[in-house]
Amino acid sequence: MNLLKEKIVREGKVFPGDILKVDGFLNHRIDCELMHAIGKEFTELFAGEKITKILTIESSGIAVACFPAYEMKVPLLFAKKGKTKNQSKEVYTSKVMSYTHATVYDISVSKEYLTAEDRVLILDDFLATGEALRGLIDLVKQAGATLVGCGAVIEKVYQNGGNQLREQGIRVESLAKVAALTDDGKVVFAE
Amino acid sequence: MNLLKEKIVREGKVFPGDILKVDGFLNHRIDCELMHAIGKEFTELFAGEKITKILTIESSGIAVACFPAYEMKVPLLFAKKGKTKNQSKEVYTSKVMSYTHATVYDISVSKEYLTAEDRVLILDDFLATGEALRGLIDLVKQAGATLVGCGAVIEKVYQNGGNQLREQGIRVESLAKVAALTDDGKVVFAE
Repeated sequence: MNLLKEKIVREGKVFPGDILKVDGFLNHRIDCELMHAIGKEFTELFAGEKITKILTIESSGIAVACFPAYEMKVPLLFAKKGKTKNQSKEVYTSKVMSYTHATVYDISVSKEYLTAEDRVLILDDFLATGEALRGLIDLVKQAGATLVGCGAVIEKVYQNGGNQLREQGIRVESLAKVAALTDDGKVVFAE
Repeated sequence: MNLLKEKIVREGKVFPGDILKVDGFLNHRIDCELMHAIGKEFTELFAGEKITKILTIESSGIAVACFPAYEMKVPLLFAKKGKTKNQSKEVYTSKVMSYTHATVYDISVSKEYLTAEDRVLILDDFLATGEALRGLIDLVKQAGATLVGCGAVIEKVYQNGGNQLREQGIRVESLAKVAALTDDGKVVFAE
């Protein structure tokens, strides 16, 4: 998606420690015109898949998933992070390891809103090691729902999370694939 | 906003302890067609105000603020919750008391993305005691930005947060004003 790649080149910032900071348009200040275009892109990519629900994870995934959900006319469900209180029977939970913060956290969705009848598209802002997607996929499995595929706005392909999921037969679509971040602060795309 | 009130009556659930649960369409599973309509409503309400930025707070505020930001063609900025690490010079922070969780938490936005030139509309899903809005207003003040007003999807008017802000001369618009939750589980609207 060229519009997105241009935006990453123009406004993304590369920091030591393999950090690509895109909080100017993706995960703090959000460019909703870009999100709208991203929504159209995901809708075209997954056309014909009879998706009934989009699943994402708070917080940065929400803005990414809103416009595709609107375009596809399906509800958006976001998994909540953190310990769930007195509702363990009512939710599906999974664990996600955060490499950024060196912690493990719980994610959960209400059983009421994710069912065996659902055909689910999982969307998120970043795909690196794939930990968040694995947690979300686990929730889909627990519900007995059908996983149609996963979509990420930016994939760091060299962290291999996306390819590990593809090797399991899961369809994973990323709108910008980053092959490397260079020492002089450049973003190299995979294709 | 009739579409919203009908949705609250049809799908909202009233629980003891003054709880109006709307997680079926507003803050867990999200009805993005409704969010789109809400976006149009806020855009009309604040037309002519030359808004340059919409400010909200993670997580539930994000879905509410995405569509108005798209309609108004302005960036959406969401305040982050929780302790800010090694970036205190780079962010404005404020404190918010959560009555639901009986805690005080920090909120922050990057100084880079909220400036004295901004004309800010603050949006959120719920307005009850007004604590979250007060924290967000504090961030706007710290930045020296102009506060155009605040918008909430649902206001519990009897918790008085909205009126306290209005008494300070702040424009506060709510799309559904709840006057009371009855013991037999009904939602009474203020107008």
